[in-house]
Amino acid sequence: MLSLTSETSQRWLAQVDAHLDEILIDHAHCEKKAAGTALNLIFAYVDRVELCRELADIVNEELDHFRQVLDLLQRRRIRFRRLTPPAYGRKLNDLVRKLEPGKAVDRLLVAGLIEARSCERFDLLRQHVSDPELASFYGSLFESEARHHSTYVRLAKLFAKDEIVDRRLDDLAAAEAEIIAAGDPLPRMHS
Amino acid sequence: MLSLTSETSQRWLAQVDAHLDEILIDHAHCEKKAAGTALNLIFAYVDRVELCRELADIVNEELDHFRQVLDLLQRRRIRFRRLTPPAYGRKLNDLVRKLEPGKAVDRLLVAGLIEARSCERFDLLRQHVSDPELASFYGSLFESEARHHSTYVRLAKLFAKDEIVDRRLDDLAAAEAEIIAAGDPLPRMHS
Repeated sequence: MLSLTSETSQRWLAQVDAHLDEILIDHAHCEKKAAGTALNLIFAYVDRVELCRELADIVNEELDHFRQVLDLLQRRRIRFRRLTPPAYGRKLNDLVRKLEPGKAVDRLLVAGLIEARSCERFDLLRQHVSDPELASFYGSLFESEARHHSTYVRLAKLFAKDEIVDRRLDDLAAAEAEIIAAGDPLPRMHS
Repeated sequence: MLSLTSETSQRWLAQVDAHLDEILIDHAHCEKKAAGTALNLIFAYVDRVELCRELADIVNEELDHFRQVLDLLQRRRIRFRRLTPPAYGRKLNDLVRKLEPGKAVDRLLVAGLIEARSCERFDLLRQHVSDPELASFYGSLFESEARHHSTYVRLAKLFAKDEIVDRRLDDLAAAEAEIIAAGDPLPRMHS
């Protein structure tokens, strides 16, 4: 269902264990960025009313998660602060084609793949962390990320035929797996 | 309460009467832009957790209104489409100072003044239009726009002393009144 072609390695879980606070701060930034991505897509394709409606729902859910992560940080007395982003998002966005309608397809599929990777990692975190509050929190986010992934893939199909979108999704998923395998020295949700 | 220094003239109501459909389409764009403004402010001042929380609520409400206007357009069989924006927003944004913390104060106050003007015009529309569905719709939006105005002014006070913010708000409100008095040949929510 998630389209990913690789599983997260132990290397990332070692980063989680060594820098959990930083991963949690980065998670708040991820939710904020996910809201920004969905809203930017509304601005770019505002004449597609169905897309606007679905993405407005996603913006709201991402911001709801953003607030939930801010609450979590506050309860743990972790100061929310700016962080250097990992290379993951930039590398994925570099894959987006420059011309429409390929650009729309790619922007939506890249957004969907980021949701899929978040979903896979939330599930892993849920199983990995010993802290019951965190385990329950990541369990609660899992379902919506999976749903957002499906929504993005479905919306991409407004701009190209199903089989073309499915083939492009396979290619982008393979590229995503390479990017995530390369990793990032910064401990981040997508390092 | 709304800080405005002028009332909307009959000239605008004449534009409403002659181009109601276009005003309604522009209203959907306004709600989308208001969500974008609030989200951009979260990105710019993300280390202010109180600001992030309050603005995340505003993004959600604006997008909820956006969907409500899309529904309204659909019920009236008005096709939602791109429109040339009026000069109002650009002229107001030109007043924003370039250096912090004045920039933050001004961005928040300008956002607050746009909410205030929307609020004043929704109230006017509510009284002016004979269509009961529209009158009820604009009545329902009135309260939240007034609340957003207050929130923006309160958030500006995170960046400068109360009396400095209040004085700047007076200046910007006077400039806003001049901009709105100049009008715009395009029939828009803020023409």
